[in-house]
Amino acid sequence: MLLIRAIVRPEKSSTVMKALFESGFPAITRMSVYGRGKQRGLKVGNVTYDELPKELLLIVIKDDDKEFVVNTIMDAARSEGKGQFGDGKIFITPVLETYTVSNGTREA
Amino acid sequence: MLLIRAIVRPEKSSTVMKALFESGFPAITRMSVYGRGKQRGLKVGNVTYDELPKELLLIVIKDDDKEFVVNTIMDAARSEGKGQFGDGKIFITPVLETYTVSNGTREA
Amino acid sequence: MLLIRAIVRPEKSSTVMKALFESGFPAITRMSVYGRGKQRGLKVGNVTYDELPKELLLIVIKDDDKEFVVNTIMDAARSEGKGQFGDGKIFITPVLETYTVSNGTREA
Repeated sequence: MLLIRAIVRPEKSSTVMKALFESGFPAITRMSVYGRGKQRGLKVGNVTYDELPKELLLIVIKDDDKEFVVNTIMDAARSEGKGQFGDGKIFITPVLETYTVSNGTREA
Repeated sequence: MLLIRAIVRPEKSSTVMKALFESGFPAITRMSVYGRGKQRGLKVGNVTYDELPKELLLIVIKDDDKEFVVNTIMDAARSEGKGQFGDGKIFITPVLETYTVSNGTREA
Repeated sequence: MLLIRAIVRPEKSSTVMKALFESGFPAITRMSVYGRGKQRGLKVGNVTYDELPKELLLIVIKDDDKEFVVNTIMDAARSEGKGQFGDGKIFITPVLETYTVSNGTREA
């Protein structure tokens, strides 16, 4: 299994969650975070925003679903047109096991 | 080493932390998150809650402590009786190294 | 690639981020969390603080940058002098792939 960690614009968060839900991936954990990318914040006139609010989404999937889920997230999270700096990042890390608390079911 | 990531009901969070503390696992990181499981939110009458508040707990343990810690968390986080949807999930991922900032101690 | 997860004192968070930025590691995700270490909270007079606010920083780096980044974080996060309990922890976990949402670039 894999843990997909997607850092997206707050205004795209519900779009990404809807796209995942409609594709059969309803289970998700979401938290509000601050992010700074390689573009080093945002300049608007004379004001520099060092960090910007982002949403961090966590999804655990089977290995075979990786390509589909990554593409679903990127399509939903990307700014219209060609995409922009700050649209976010996806990090994929290995998961060894999961447990469902209600019934103790283990998956590996 | 292993990273245990437990997503539990907010009202069970302190019970889980107490159980871990009393079992010799005081070190923990906690954050407030939103979660949606396979049950796709909660319906109360005509109102659907798409996401519900959860607490995410992070604990780093030795491999040998896995079964004990997972069971301790599940026992403390499970709703009375047989458990219920929404009681939460536990994800286990590998940890390569840890460092203690105060004295630079490395563990692997 | 590696995911560096640093849990630091809130008052050290911007110092750590500045040190990373100035060393060529601007990209970072930050969130506010609560933490309890092996010292089991903090006692001030008769009051015990079971948990203390911390900042959790996430940085994805190349394997070769690990030692430099870990040392940069520890130097910036450590309390003056010899360091103190509560200065924080660093956890290192493996990353399989990353994607940049704006242009779909994959790194592995």
